[in-house]
Amino acid sequence: MATLGLIEYKDASPEVRAVYDDIMATRKVDWINNFWKALAHDPATLKRTWEDIKQIMAPGALDPLTKELVYVAISVSNQCNYCIASHTAGARKKGMTDAMFKELMAVVGMANETNRLSAGYQIEIDEQFKG
Amino acid sequence: MATLGLIEYKDASPEVRAVYDDIMATRKVDWINNFWKALAHDPATLKRTWEDIKQIMAPGALDPLTKELVYVAISVSNQCNYCIASHTAGARKKGMTDAMFKELMAVVGMANETNRLSAGYQIEIDEQFKG
Amino acid sequence: MATLGLIEYKDASPEVRAVYDDIMATRKVDWINNFWKALAHDPATLKRTWEDIKQIMAPGALDPLTKELVYVAISVSNQCNYCIASHTAGARKKGMTDAMFKELMAVVGMANETNRLSAGYQIEIDEQFKG
Amino acid sequence: MATLGLIEYKDASPEVRAVYDDIMATRKVDWINNFWKALAHDPATLKRTWEDIKQIMAPGALDPLTKELVYVAISVSNQCNYCIASHTAGARKKGMTDAMFKELMAVVGMANETNRLSAGYQIEIDEQFKG
Amino acid sequence: MATLGLIEYKDASPEVRAVYDDIMATRKVDWINNFWKALAHDPATLKRTWEDIKQIMAPGALDPLTKELVYVAISVSNQCNYCIASHTAGARKKGMTDAMFKELMAVVGMANETNRLSAGYQIEIDEQFKG
Amino acid sequence: MATLGLIEYKDASPEVRAVYDDIMATRKVDWINNFWKALAHDPATLKRTWEDIKQIMAPGALDPLTKELVYVAISVSNQCNYCIASHTAGARKKGMTDAMFKELMAVVGMANETNRLSAGYQIEIDEQFKG
Repeated sequence: MATLGLIEYKDASPEVRAVYDDIMATRKVDWINNFWKALAHDPATLKRTWEDIKQIMAPGALDPLTKELVYVAISVSNQCNYCIASHTAGARKKGMTDAMFKELMAVVGMANETNRLSAGYQIEIDEQFKG
Repeated sequence: MATLGLIEYKDASPEVRAVYDDIMATRKVDWINNFWKALAHDPATLKRTWEDIKQIMAPGALDPLTKELVYVAISVSNQCNYCIASHTAGARKKGMTDAMFKELMAVVGMANETNRLSAGYQIEIDEQFKG
Repeated sequence: MATLGLIEYKDASPEVRAVYDDIMATRKVDWINNFWKALAHDPATLKRTWEDIKQIMAPGALDPLTKELVYVAISVSNQCNYCIASHTAGARKKGMTDAMFKELMAVVGMANETNRLSAGYQIEIDEQFKG
Repeated sequence: MATLGLIEYKDASPEVRAVYDDIMATRKVDWINNFWKALAHDPATLKRTWEDIKQIMAPGALDPLTKELVYVAISVSNQCNYCIASHTAGARKKGMTDAMFKELMAVVGMANETNRLSAGYQIEIDEQFKG
Repeated sequence: MATLGLIEYKDASPEVRAVYDDIMATRKVDWINNFWKALAHDPATLKRTWEDIKQIMAPGALDPLTKELVYVAISVSNQCNYCIASHTAGARKKGMTDAMFKELMAVVGMANETNRLSAGYQIEIDEQFKG
Repeated sequence: MATLGLIEYKDASPEVRAVYDDIMATRKVDWINNFWKALAHDPATLKRTWEDIKQIMAPGALDPLTKELVYVAISVSNQCNYCIASHTAGARKKGMTDAMFKELMAVVGMANETNRLSAGYQIEIDEQFKG
């Protein structure tokens, strides 16, 4: 189980509850997932992490689904099991279809493959790719 | 320099030239970047890798720009300098603006951060996220 | 379960028991954790790994708690679940408080984030940072 | 060179200059390193990243040198060359001696080794290490 | 459980069954492991991945056991639990003895250690090692 | 350049020279590569690392070339440029042909790809693969 345990809403301080409330309101959900309940042991990190994610994942030059797909891709590449599960669910909620998921996995696999071929062959950067 | 050197078009076998030609035709460019010139030492790998990439990066449920953004994201996460340079250039050609690049980097950074927070706090997967 | 199974003290060879005894004496504990019981299938690796750890983790220019915090940090960054669990327990035993743990996780997360921002923006090393 | 180039102080917007000023004041230096000059293309990320680092790296339950040593350790483990150079310099400024650096590297190497031994032997977490 | 579930032979399309049949014939086994049953949701990826593996893992300048040992080594280094379990089993089937496994793990651990020492000490490539 | 500089044979202490001599004798070479010259700033780590490598890389159940191929594979997977250059040279010296190198790279690329497909599809370990 989580190192420090999980802090449920009913047991949370007003400071933590305010973050929980904002997470639920922003995401239009009525529950808090374990990641935040664990971080709640460190209210400063809870607040900072949530506010950073809220800012970064908001619609901008990239739409929220694209950002979530990238999040899944990185989590898969890093073998972070919790993150894969939570962000795959999050991406589905934002509109990721099975077809998108499957293409995403193919790209992640391919990129990890060619990243190693490039390194192993000790390939130098083409002049055309420099600044 | 590349471990086995680079094979230029003029020195390439017909088998390798056929791949080079297809790369240039598919990408609408008139040159071949070093990655392929190095892989050309292994024609089977050259052909397989190019055909895989061509299949995977083609338009589908995800558009080509989204796929290229994911490719950049993985390359950055893996610290593959050649891949970062080449795929950043590739993404720009497919329409990545400066604003998109900057948001992409923010997501990649954030995902790498929370991937570690999840692991470090030993967080269990919520029932809601399970298949 | 462990690939080769676990070798309990009562079933261990004198060579393995000698390492087990030294681990328990050095760490002032009365049990052996699974890592060593698995490595015991390879007595040379068991002995070498234990002696390396004993040398490296001993007090020196860095105190044992600082070294253990670094060990936790690397294990978290690498998503090694066994190592996170065992070294978090080890760090607590050496004096890591909840407050230290939480700050440590924040640093690990942050470093993983900026490591990717540096790579993605293809930042060159400042002259001032060169040897 | 950096993907988007570097923004020097004289060319920076008031918003960016405010961050630059705070970095120099906080760190008691009279120059800005390339990391920040590159991030300055994205003022929101520049500001957020700096404020996060300032908060996270401040003295707390862990002293600033310990935090910086962890930052170096993660950067080394991730093979981030820019980060290794900049944070090694940063750690020296905060008091890291040659002896500390050498012990730190030994711990980072050892942790990366045993992280793989644990995974490869498929070792299960001991009951004693669970929550 | 697997994100999209597993496709059993009896429920598979003729296209998928053809791949399953080839896997069983090539490997001389009478069952299909979960990796392929999950990929079967994406028949193009199933077919491409199987054909790539079949080509790459076939006898060549390197024998099949050596290739499988490398596969185990990478999976261990990447902390991919499914891959460690499946490829360790695969390597045993191809002739990996306990003694080989133990030496392999020692090399993987050592390489991960010195990879970090090299990075941390910021060591430049010797002229003798260049091209 | 290397963080602490390089220690040449003529400037080395007797303790360091003894290691240098053993490296040259064991490897049948008449020079020392930068890795060891950098580690020489930490004689205990120099000695321990060399003795570990000497033990681990010696002929055993696996032959020295197979071990060196695994070392190259891990270094490539980890994007360690120094290690890729030095161990590729080392593997050639032990008999790695161009054909072997190319097949090795293909396996490393493939393993990195399927490691991510396994993680992304959240595939559970088959009963048949369990201990």
